Amino acid sequence: MTDAALIALDWGTTLARAYRIDAAGRILGERAAELGMQKLGELSHAHALDQLLGDWRVEAAPRLACGMIGSRQGWAEAPYLRCPVSLDTLAQTLTNAGGGAITIVAGLCTRDAAGVPDVMRGEETQLIGALPSHAPRTLAVLPGTHSKWAIVEDGTVLDFATYMTGELYEALLGHTILGRLATRSGGTDADPAAFQRGIERGLGAGGLMHDIFGARTLALVDRLDPVGAGEWLSGVLIGREIRTARSWAHRAGHDASRVLVVGDGALVARYERALAASGIAADRGVEQAAARGLFRIARAAGRLGP
Amino acid sequence: MTDAALIALDWGTTLARAYRIDAAGRILGERAAELGMQKLGELSHAHALDQLLGDWRVEAAPRLACGMIGSRQGWAEAPYLRCPVSLDTLAQTLTNAGGGAITIVAGLCTRDAAGVPDVMRGEETQLIGALPSHAPRTLAVLPGTHSKWAIVEDGTVLDFATYMTGELYEALLGHTILGRLATRSGGTDADPAAFQRGIERGLGAGGLMHDIFGARTLALVDRLDPVGAGEWLSGVLIGREIRTARSWAHRAGHDASRVLVVGDGALVARYERALAASGIAADRGVEQAAARGLFRIARAAGRLGP
Repeated sequence: MTDAALIALDWGTTLARAYRIDAAGRILGERAAELGMQKLGELSHAHALDQLLGDWRVEAAPRLACGMIGSRQGWAEAPYLRCPVSLDTLAQTLTNAGGGAITIVAGLCTRDAAGVPDVMRGEETQLIGALPSHAPRTLAVLPGTHSKWAIVEDGTVLDFATYMTGELYEALLGHTILGRLATRSGGTDADPAAFQRGIERGLGAGGLMHDIFGARTLALVDRLDPVGAGEWLSGVLIGREIRTARSWAHRAGHDASRVLVVGDGALVARYERALAASGIAADRGVEQAAARGLFRIARAAGRLGP
Repeated sequence: MTDAALIALDWGTTLARAYRIDAAGRILGERAAELGMQKLGELSHAHALDQLLGDWRVEAAPRLACGMIGSRQGWAEAPYLRCPVSLDTLAQTLTNAGGGAITIVAGLCTRDAAGVPDVMRGEETQLIGALPSHAPRTLAVLPGTHSKWAIVEDGTVLDFATYMTGELYEALLGHTILGRLATRSGGTDADPAAFQRGIERGLGAGGLMHDIFGARTLALVDRLDPVGAGEWLSGVLIGREIRTARSWAHRAGHDASRVLVVGDGALVARYERALAASGIAADRGVEQAAARGLFRIARAAGRLGP
C-alpha cells in the first residue's frame, strides 16, 4: 500500500479516530474505536493506541494527535495557548507522550469580556483543517456537545467562545421534568414546524431558564406531542446559541452575516436551518477537518515522514 | 384537642404535607411524608392520604389540597385558570377527588410575551397565603426547583413566570461535564466570594449556555476548587434568574425595586444575598404560606367546618 507520511489521531472523550495520510495530504484510510479518554477503564494509553492502529502500528510515519488525549487526565498534558494562535505557533508547541509514541497538539484558551476563561482541545485543529492558511477572516461554528464559535484569519485563531448546547439538550431531556413530555428525535425532519417555532423562540430576547420550560407547557397546554416538544427544545437551544454567538462576533467587530459550519451529519443540517432562519448565510466546511488540520500542523512542524 | 376547621394539604411531586388549622387560621399541627405524586408507586391516593393523616383521618373537618395532586397524573385533574385570578375565583373553582375525600385548588396559567404558555400548581396557594387580600401590588418570588415570580395585588395573581433554576442546577452538576470539577454545597456560606462572583456573572449580559461553561474553565484555568465552582454556578443561575425576572416585571410595569421572597431555609438566604447584589430590596414572606393560603381559600369558599 501507499506509504503514509502521517498517522493523524483525533482522540477525544468518547471516540478515537486514526487516519493514514500521504505526503500530499490525501487521506488513505480511517479507523475509529470507542477508545476515548472516558472509555479506557484499565486500558493503558499505549495499549489503546495499539488497538486503534492495528496493523498500522508498524508504520514508520510520525503520529500526531489532537483532542482530550492532551488534557490533564490524558496521556500527557499539552498546554493551552492563549489566543490569537497561529498554525506556526501550534506547530512549534507539540507535546510528546508515551516516550515518543505520539505527539500532541496544544489546546487554546482565551478570556471573554467578563474575564472568564474559555478553552478548546481538538477544535483548534479542526479549524486549521477547515480553513486554508490564506483564508480571509472567517466566522466558523463547530456544532456539538460543546459548540465552539471561532474567528479565524490567515491560519490564526483570533478568538473563540464555547456554548454547552448539545450537552444541555441531553441533560434537559434525560434528567429534568422536560423529558417526561418531550423526546429526542434522531432525524432533522421529525417536526420541522415545531423546530422552526423553537428557533424563533431561541432567537428572541427571553431568558433561557424561562424559555426552556415551554417544552413542558406547550405539551401540557397546547398539546404539542413528545417529538414536537423535543424538536421545539432543540430549536430553542440552537437559536439561542446563534443569537448569543452573533452578539459575541459583533463585539469582536465581525458582521456575522456569513458563517462556516464545520462538522458532519444531522447536526450540521440542523444548524444550517437555524442559521437560515436567523438570516445568516451558511457555508459547509470540509469533511474530516481534524485529519486535515493535523496534516497541516505536521507539515508546518516539518514532521511528515517517514 | 382543639377542633380543626380545616385539614390543609400541600401535596406536591415529592412531598405531601398536612396541617390541622382552627377556625381562626391558627396552625395546630403539621405532618409530612414522602408521599408526593412521584413517590406513590402502587399506593392509591386514598391509602396515601390515610397514611399521611394518621389519626387525623377521623376528623370531620373538610380537606382542601393544592399542588400536583391536581395534575393530570394526580388524583383528579383540576383546571388551570387563566391569569389574572383572584382569591374568590380560586374559591369558586374547587375540584372534588376520591368521592369527596378531598377538594383541590385549581392551578393557574398565563402566556408570556411570545405567546408561550406558563403554568403553576400549588404556588398560587402560597401566593394567596403570603399576601393578605388587601396587600398593594407586590412582586414575589418563590425560589425552588422551578422558581416562580408573580405579581399579586389585592388577593389577585395578575401574572407570573417560571424559571427552571433549581432543576437546571441539579442537572448540570449531576449530569454534565460541569459536575466533574464542581460540587454541590449544602450551606449558604461555603464560598461567599465565589457565589458573589457567580451572581455578578449571572447579572451580566452574557448567554447562559456560554456562561455556565465557566464552572469548568474557572476550575481548570483559575484553579477554583470544586465547592467554589459549585457556588459560582449557583450564583450564575440565581443571578440570571433575577436579571430575566426583573426585565419581565419591568415589561409588566412594575419597578422591581422590592421583592417578597416566599419559602424557607437555605435557598431563601441565597436569594436574599443575590437580590442584595442586584440592588433589589428583599422582604421575607411568612412561613407555611401554602397552609395559610389553603385556609384563606377555604374561608372564601365557605368551607371551614366541621
